[in-house]
Amino acid sequence: MTGQNKKIYSLASIANEIGATLVGDPDFVIVGLCSLPKASPDRLSFLSNSAYKHYLKSTTAGAVIVTKDDQLLFSGNKLLTENPYLAYALASRLFVDLSEVPSGIHSSAIIDSSASLAKGVLIGPNVVIEENVVIGQRCQIGAGAVIGAGAQLGDECSISENVVINKDVTLGNRVTIHSGAVIGADGFGYAFDGEKSIKIYQLGSVRVGNDVEIGAQTTIDRGALDDTVICDGVKIDNQVQIGHNCHIGNHTIICGCVGLAGSVTLGAYCVMGGGSGAVGHITLADYVQVSAMSLVSQSISEAGRYSAGTVQMKTGEWKRASMRFKELDSMAKRLKRLERTRS
Amino acid sequence: MTGQNKKIYSLASIANEIGATLVGDPDFVIVGLCSLPKASPDRLSFLSNSAYKHYLKSTTAGAVIVTKDDQLLFSGNKLLTENPYLAYALASRLFVDLSEVPSGIHSSAIIDSSASLAKGVLIGPNVVIEENVVIGQRCQIGAGAVIGAGAQLGDECSISENVVINKDVTLGNRVTIHSGAVIGADGFGYAFDGEKSIKIYQLGSVRVGNDVEIGAQTTIDRGALDDTVICDGVKIDNQVQIGHNCHIGNHTIICGCVGLAGSVTLGAYCVMGGGSGAVGHITLADYVQVSAMSLVSQSISEAGRYSAGTVQMKTGEWKRASMRFKELDSMAKRLKRLERTRS
Amino acid sequence: MTGQNKKIYSLASIANEIGATLVGDPDFVIVGLCSLPKASPDRLSFLSNSAYKHYLKSTTAGAVIVTKDDQLLFSGNKLLTENPYLAYALASRLFVDLSEVPSGIHSSAIIDSSASLAKGVLIGPNVVIEENVVIGQRCQIGAGAVIGAGAQLGDECSISENVVINKDVTLGNRVTIHSGAVIGADGFGYAFDGEKSIKIYQLGSVRVGNDVEIGAQTTIDRGALDDTVICDGVKIDNQVQIGHNCHIGNHTIICGCVGLAGSVTLGAYCVMGGGSGAVGHITLADYVQVSAMSLVSQSISEAGRYSAGTVQMKTGEWKRASMRFKELDSMAKRLKRLERTRS
Repeated sequence: MTGQNKKIYSLASIANEIGATLVGDPDFVIVGLCSLPKASPDRLSFLSNSAYKHYLKSTTAGAVIVTKDDQLLFSGNKLLTENPYLAYALASRLFVDLSEVPSGIHSSAIIDSSASLAKGVLIGPNVVIEENVVIGQRCQIGAGAVIGAGAQLGDECSISENVVINKDVTLGNRVTIHSGAVIGADGFGYAFDGEKSIKIYQLGSVRVGNDVEIGAQTTIDRGALDDTVICDGVKIDNQVQIGHNCHIGNHTIICGCVGLAGSVTLGAYCVMGGGSGAVGHITLADYVQVSAMSLVSQSISEAGRYSAGTVQMKTGEWKRASMRFKELDSMAKRLKRLERTRS
Repeated sequence: MTGQNKKIYSLASIANEIGATLVGDPDFVIVGLCSLPKASPDRLSFLSNSAYKHYLKSTTAGAVIVTKDDQLLFSGNKLLTENPYLAYALASRLFVDLSEVPSGIHSSAIIDSSASLAKGVLIGPNVVIEENVVIGQRCQIGAGAVIGAGAQLGDECSISENVVINKDVTLGNRVTIHSGAVIGADGFGYAFDGEKSIKIYQLGSVRVGNDVEIGAQTTIDRGALDDTVICDGVKIDNQVQIGHNCHIGNHTIICGCVGLAGSVTLGAYCVMGGGSGAVGHITLADYVQVSAMSLVSQSISEAGRYSAGTVQMKTGEWKRASMRFKELDSMAKRLKRLERTRS
Repeated sequence: MTGQNKKIYSLASIANEIGATLVGDPDFVIVGLCSLPKASPDRLSFLSNSAYKHYLKSTTAGAVIVTKDDQLLFSGNKLLTENPYLAYALASRLFVDLSEVPSGIHSSAIIDSSASLAKGVLIGPNVVIEENVVIGQRCQIGAGAVIGAGAQLGDECSISENVVINKDVTLGNRVTIHSGAVIGADGFGYAFDGEKSIKIYQLGSVRVGNDVEIGAQTTIDRGALDDTVICDGVKIDNQVQIGHNCHIGNHTIICGCVGLAGSVTLGAYCVMGGGSGAVGHITLADYVQVSAMSLVSQSISEAGRYSAGTVQMKTGEWKRASMRFKELDSMAKRLKRLERTRS
């Protein structure tokens, strides 16, 4: 339980911060958060997954966030709320080290004289900021990050170590980009001349909205003609690849290792499960959820959950089933024939 | 429509550059390229996908690249060519910012005295060039890139920000490597001694041919004994993993998120679709195309298209189908039995 | 056959180093290792894959590592051992450039005065080491790497170029991390408030045991509450994503492009094949092996091999089969019906 920065709160103050109703000792001291099974008496836990309900009897947590309906299952201090998971998210902010970084520009940073840096920025060691870059207020740029010519960052962006933001990329306010991500590399486009691939120069850029989070090592390519667009509130995990001219709708969630080919349009409030993918030039409606490692190869016009693939089997059984998959069309025809001969 | 660098051409000069036949006003001024649906009257568009043909009536593009067969579908200025997509690729070069970078070595670059840099190179901030490196003419090395000892780059290579090229890697001429790619990290090899994994030191390197492009965050491992080889004209997208001792044939295309295990041999002019993969020690013939997210687990000796996996379904239906997949061998046997009892 | 550093050994000394029995000329000079098909008379090869047995007749290798049972198949100098692949691994160490790097701190490195560096460390150009970092003896940190505040590295760790180790991450002894890897970025966690995603701050860290190797561009996220844990002897290839609060058991192997969602527990001595994945909150027993590109979506309590997916087919045939997959539940029911009408 490292990293919780030795912050201390009374239970009453936490209840107040997260908008929960306190049942128990208002002066009870909480030093951090914990899960129900790995708890300690000076920490606050929560029940959001009903499969964990039985832990409420045995947990050693000093206090627990629960719903009214579940409050009788735990005898200690409680914080009551309709959505314990959301309350936990709000509480997590109290225990993280967010505020104390002073602004300043490290002496090793290399900043073009034409760049414009607003007040309160923190620029780390070895950062490179090229010509005509605009950096908004209170942005933080981690060590080794490179901000390409003409890029524009809104206010309060947090760019981690060794991130590369290529030229002319624009970020809204409160955009967080984790280490090693590359925003605005060339899209992957070639025309074949009969012998070799001729590069299609990528003339668009990338536009990222407000309150977007982008994971470590994720790549978002610049557009071929128009821009690649990431709308407000989108959250993207690590190792994701977003091809040129994709358009990701508001508040969509893209889990780790997802790959989107070029010109994919995702609606708002979609969820792409880990390792899932989409072929180029297709459109998904709002509120579409794609299961882990499923490929979407056709547009989806109706909200809902979609899956592809097969489930895990012991490899011996799987081999037999997958060999039969090859015969599946023949099996279907033979079944049809048998049905006909019956009638 | 950012990033098109305010270049301006007459339609006649573009026709000349891309080898097309002009039908219309030779002095018509073009300020950039655009797609048919998102066009503007001062831009040039193209029709390469017949599904977009209906846009020719409504597009506001100032001129369009089309085939002779389609020329009557558009009433404005036209550039006629047999392959509009190729013509578009050639035109894209006209609107990108390619030439104006002056050569020079940034004062913060750390270059070993034994390294050899040809004339016209551009070395960015914080670049590290180790001992005995050879850099060819007019190479450009972006900020934060590291070129390991003994690596050799041909002429006119473009190495983007934070790329790592490990020791003894060789690149041909006109190799482009996008941000964050790592060329020549250790291959993944261990022998199991009954208790633990014993590292197999990777004694080979990586050899990259001419006119190769390698995407952001892509990794190409050094060989165990011999070298990993990327032949001329190969194009590799982002987030690709190429294992030790792979051999990628001329002009093969590897889309984003592909993973190749060790000692995979791809022929010439292959296409590995996005997210596809291959197990180790297999060989694919020339002109093999593998669909997105398909695994190749056996060698392929015949050119053509190959696929694996299942198609997307609503998750409820998919669950039923995938449960039945587990019974597939039994179903096949029962079908056979029914057929026997019929005859 | 680059990179073998011109080291020279007598066959007798190699036999001694790898614990093999020499049959042949003890003074025979070996300048490197090679495979059987690409051999040369001054190099040592090995037979570990029985499919390569026929090469023993034609190989030009100067000596070969074989089992006693296979020794008659090769007429030249031999090193006999029970496990030729392991012997080759041990021999590979003899030909790699391991030792000669002198310790020292490059003048461009930026090291906080509160950091503690043990003796014998090698700190490369542009390395950034933040406050309260502890670096053990003989660690090597490559150019451009960033070690975040409070991180602790044991002895003899090797951190390659542009790696990012975030704050409070701890590494054991002899941990190797290849270029571009990011250890300790935020886990991917949000609670939905009905309109938008609320960030769950990630309060845990990452703990890595002894003798762990982590590939290029791999990402291992910090835990939400507890730490993400990588146990002793684990080997992780390139481009792997390990979500928050995963727990990877001793000596488990994770091949390239694997993605593990949050809170996945892998047992000891597991193998996750290339491109495979696991959904969150599941547990795999010890000695589970998952095939390439297979998704594990349920816990596995029994050792053994598991697979998912379908095998490669020509795309035309695959289309028919995958369309039938959609009818599979219906086919199963119709088959059942036919069987009933027979009896």
